[in-house]
Amino acid sequence: MLYLDGHALPAVWLRDHCGCPECADPRSGQKLFGVTDLPADLAVADSHDDGTTVTVTFAPDGHVSTYARDRLLAPPAPDDRTEDGKEFDLRITEVAWADFQADRTAALDALMLRGFVLLRDVPTADRKVLDVARGFGYVRETNYGTLFEVRVEENPHNLAFTGLAIAPHTDNPYRDPVPTVQLLHCLVNGSTGGDSGLVDGFAAAALLRTEDPAAFSVLAGTPVTFRYADPDTELTASRPLIGLDPRGRIREVRFNNRSARPPRAPHDELVAFYAAYRAFAAILARPAGRLDFRLVPGDCLVFDNTRMLHARTAFTESGARHLQGCYADLDAVASDLAVLRRRAPLDTLADLFAGAGAADYLGEAVTQAVHMIQAATLAEAAGASDALIAAALLHDVGHFTGEVSGADLMAGTDNRHSHTGADWLARWFPPAVTEPVRLHVAAKRYLCAVQPEYLGRLSEASVYTLGVQGGPMSAGEVAEFEAGPHAMAAVALRRWDDEAKDPEALTRDFAHFRPVLERVLRY
Amino acid sequence: MLYLDGHALPAVWLRDHCGCPECADPRSGQKLFGVTDLPADLAVADSHDDGTTVTVTFAPDGHVSTYARDRLLAPPAPDDRTEDGKEFDLRITEVAWADFQADRTAALDALMLRGFVLLRDVPTADRKVLDVARGFGYVRETNYGTLFEVRVEENPHNLAFTGLAIAPHTDNPYRDPVPTVQLLHCLVNGSTGGDSGLVDGFAAAALLRTEDPAAFSVLAGTPVTFRYADPDTELTASRPLIGLDPRGRIREVRFNNRSARPPRAPHDELVAFYAAYRAFAAILARPAGRLDFRLVPGDCLVFDNTRMLHARTAFTESGARHLQGCYADLDAVASDLAVLRRRAPLDTLADLFAGAGAADYLGEAVTQAVHMIQAATLAEAAGASDALIAAALLHDVGHFTGEVSGADLMAGTDNRHSHTGADWLARWFPPAVTEPVRLHVAAKRYLCAVQPEYLGRLSEASVYTLGVQGGPMSAGEVAEFEAGPHAMAAVALRRWDDEAKDPEALTRDFAHFRPVLERVLRY
Repeated sequence: MLYLDGHALPAVWLRDHCGCPECADPRSGQKLFGVTDLPADLAVADSHDDGTTVTVTFAPDGHVSTYARDRLLAPPAPDDRTEDGKEFDLRITEVAWADFQADRTAALDALMLRGFVLLRDVPTADRKVLDVARGFGYVRETNYGTLFEVRVEENPHNLAFTGLAIAPHTDNPYRDPVPTVQLLHCLVNGSTGGDSGLVDGFAAAALLRTEDPAAFSVLAGTPVTFRYADPDTELTASRPLIGLDPRGRIREVRFNNRSARPPRAPHDELVAFYAAYRAFAAILARPAGRLDFRLVPGDCLVFDNTRMLHARTAFTESGARHLQGCYADLDAVASDLAVLRRRAPLDTLADLFAGAGAADYLGEAVTQAVHMIQAATLAEAAGASDALIAAALLHDVGHFTGEVSGADLMAGTDNRHSHTGADWLARWFPPAVTEPVRLHVAAKRYLCAVQPEYLGRLSEASVYTLGVQGGPMSAGEVAEFEAGPHAMAAVALRRWDDEAKDPEALTRDFAHFRPVLERVLRY
Repeated sequence: MLYLDGHALPAVWLRDHCGCPECADPRSGQKLFGVTDLPADLAVADSHDDGTTVTVTFAPDGHVSTYARDRLLAPPAPDDRTEDGKEFDLRITEVAWADFQADRTAALDALMLRGFVLLRDVPTADRKVLDVARGFGYVRETNYGTLFEVRVEENPHNLAFTGLAIAPHTDNPYRDPVPTVQLLHCLVNGSTGGDSGLVDGFAAAALLRTEDPAAFSVLAGTPVTFRYADPDTELTASRPLIGLDPRGRIREVRFNNRSARPPRAPHDELVAFYAAYRAFAAILARPAGRLDFRLVPGDCLVFDNTRMLHARTAFTESGARHLQGCYADLDAVASDLAVLRRRAPLDTLADLFAGAGAADYLGEAVTQAVHMIQAATLAEAAGASDALIAAALLHDVGHFTGEVSGADLMAGTDNRHSHTGADWLARWFPPAVTEPVRLHVAAKRYLCAVQPEYLGRLSEASVYTLGVQGGPMSAGEVAEFEAGPHAMAAVALRRWDDEAKDPEALTRDFAHFRPVLERVLRY
């Protein structure tokens, strides 16, 4: 056991976090041991806490693990599939199709947080809804096809394909796993009636828990069988109307009067079930909890089918109303959103290259932005790894991110830009990117020490800053530098750095290197 | 409330079963009312039980519902996604590809019951595994694609794509919904090692419940976050290692040391969790609970990924080992199996047409099989509904299914074959099929009464049996017959019946009509 800021951390839990190459695959990060591979009497033999990194030596096997202190103490992330952190707010988030194509973040964030989003001006092309779904996930094929047509059919197996009003419901409750995302894309809506409605099932279930806790418990504790059959299909799923996670948090609502079968239970349980069912249905039917709106051609409603109930008013079967729909899943939505957020810092970097980086020369014939892009271009041409190309591209960002600027450096104050840059980048990039950046000034001092002719190849500005930065390395510094795991990468980077000051050179642009950065972002 | 065989049945529960056209859509069978549409003070005002049918009149609204008595009293079906009714038997069910193509029932039954099935001699064609999956369900696309290749990759993001041993695990635990079926199709297995293993997670969880109930509760009550990330993906799911349904039955096992993240909880909970985790892992690792086998080219292993853990031994990365896999879902498997079982009686009918029906002439120039097929051919040519074509095809099955045979009828004993046939068929077919069958003899007696020239068109045998069957209808019988909902269908059927005795006519065969029967089977 280890105490950290008053938290008692069990040895086995600590060991389960170990990220050393013996415990986790360096390529994939996947854990390499099982819990039974650990000694049953595992204990903390020794530990050291430097305020940033915690080092633990375990008994009886002597394994040593090091951890980022803040990661060990990070609070648990909320489970974004439960009510935790959801907003019970029926406000429509509208995102224009052009904006969505440029950045899906706002739309997907609304989908995860409020349960739905309305995309506007989506081209009313046949099967376009599949493209929309594939933009953030995978289409879930069902017996209705990859795509289903919501319009009046001659001999429908499902009331959705009539002009009847459909009360608020979740779709496909007879399916397990249920499709967790639904998309409805309006192509035509010229009918009288046929308006849309949404009800937040999580909010309704939370209200039921407040107003009638016993009813809430009954519904959470009673599996209901939902069934759908047609000549080629016979689907059944038995799940509660309100699904909870093991901690009792609302996690899934299923509500569909059309396909719910009467449960089987002793008399008193049935009476309690129907009373609870009625209480929940009454909350779901409250006008205050229902958002009504009309889909117009080009609208694509995307909603969480484990949470939001959808409805429509009746419409004249002769009127033209045609939606196309498909199903997808929330796990891919959350993944897409996480990757978009992981990549968001690249926008900051792009701004840096387009803004301050494009204005600052720091004594050279090229701007800092051009200089860094030239370095990356040279790295790419040399067949360097993605990580080293990224390091070359970003090696001088410390001039812009620290408290001491590049201008200060030119005025004689070492801004330690290699360190501030590496530290700043370390929030997003792994050591294979940050450490060559950190060492690229040291590499200059190293090369000056071991290759006397090297000094002659440096630019005037670079010779000037060499002095500010400490001059050539001593023999002791050289030995220490060479022993480090990132020395050779830093030296390679340094050589591209020195060459990347040619105002005549053809270079790539930041956008060209963005996919390289995406590949090496820490995850 | 109604008492039936000692069972107290609440009024609202009874009403929830009502299948009248006001309560359930006649086309789709979907329920048309919601629970809040029913009076809050619903009660049984009156009831009648004739031993087969129960009729209930409700207060206060006077609604009348009729029910098949046996359906009201049917015991609940086991939830085939829980441990209920599962067989904890690691015996391999092997089904040859040719047999599977002819009938998927045995294979899918094993998959649902024992959690896995091994298809043999599946053609080792590229992407063939997708065809296998599409034979009984829908392929679940993931970030690994619709199909994934299990072979050594140069720079793998997942240990599956290395030659390392993989301990027993369920796949994609970081996905929610998790893929519930996995297929692994062996194309090449020339490596040293690379054998396969399966462990029944339901059986192991049930063992844990017996051996260490506290540990079982801890695992069922602790969400564990599983995580997978690569440059384009960041999937997380928080679910317990042992998922229970609201009744406490084992419903889903997730177990994957590679992607499980250490949970966050107070110290004592963490200690209890790891002890329970170790206990479960130790059970899963018992050799007695593991089935080891080697996939050979052509083998396609299909297993329930919510239940079975799969494993493989290490293999030489230079050796040729290549599997193709994909994911699908159990709900479609269960649906396919239910539809196959629904259609199984059609095999009995096919046998009847090929066997007894093809041997029995009953006084006509054609066999009974040919006679019935001719009647169906005439119905089809006349543009009759599927139900009426089916009725024409099956109208004389009562000669073969009752205690009194067609031969007895020809010997002078009325075998009431229209009634015995209709009753026999009613297990599988709806009234639109069975009632014209039931009335086709009455229709002869009716036509003889209302159309004097009709008698002259009957065959000699038919004139003979008319006498045995009661002769022409009386005026009272005529009025009663005409008032029935199936009279016109029965008369139409009767006319095809009378014409369908031509030894020279070209007719279809039973196989031609089988799809018609499939469409009209009751569901």
